[in-house]
Amino acid sequence: MLDPAVVLFANDAFYLAFNARDFEAMDNLWARETPAVCVHPGWNPLLDRDEIMESWRAIFSNGDSQPGIRFHGGTVVQQGGNYSVIGYEELSGAWLVVTNCFAVEDGAPRMFHHQASHCAEPPQLGPEAPASVQ
Amino acid sequence: MLDPAVVLFANDAFYLAFNARDFEAMDNLWARETPAVCVHPGWNPLLDRDEIMESWRAIFSNGDSQPGIRFHGGTVVQQGGNYSVIGYEELSGAWLVVTNCFAVEDGAPRMFHHQASHCAEPPQLGPEAPASVQ
Repeated sequence: MLDPAVVLFANDAFYLAFNARDFEAMDNLWARETPAVCVHPGWNPLLDRDEIMESWRAIFSNGDSQPGIRFHGGTVVQQGGNYSVIGYEELSGAWLVVTNCFAVEDGAPRMFHHQASHCAEPPQLGPEAPASVQ
Repeated sequence: MLDPAVVLFANDAFYLAFNARDFEAMDNLWARETPAVCVHPGWNPLLDRDEIMESWRAIFSNGDSQPGIRFHGGTVVQQGGNYSVIGYEELSGAWLVVTNCFAVEDGAPRMFHHQASHCAEPPQLGPEAPASVQ
């Protein structure tokens, strides 16, 4: 079992890698043993690790397509031996609901699922809404 | 470990319950031990089983808000002790990418995660694209 703070740290590392366009950090974050799924907003789902990494490489190499992204309000949910972080992504004034799932590989959380979906209503978050654990 | 066909059967049961507006069937489908998450299209995420069930009751009682929904192209992915079904929902000519996750409770698959997100490109599905297992 992982401390939820460790899961949130991995979730933060995902957004740091995203904003820094750091392909190596992103590659290290994703699970290698657990089958991975990635659903970028509007995309068809990617169900192959190599394909997912190729998508990040393409996103990172397209300077115009990636505004800064901010993560808000993460709740960690333990589901069996895996962990989901449910929260919001804010980019260019738009809000998405996001699910980031982590498996434990070699004792550390590794992302195996990422799906962001349109959110019609901006979330009700306080100015410093703390991450919570369920 | 479950046979992937059993997971797909539970996934089909979800859409049958949805289209039949069968609240009891929907309630039976959802996990009771595993913390549940439901992200209806455009909604903020629901992280409480009672709240999720209340949302289904509201959706089912609103005759205008629920056109028939069809599920296509399910791929079953085993992730630790849990299973994800990744596929597409078609409703009113629009396409969504959907993730339905199942935990094993009392030997049977029970849904603990549902998230549907906008899909900009209709999927490339054959006329009888079979469900696949990964």
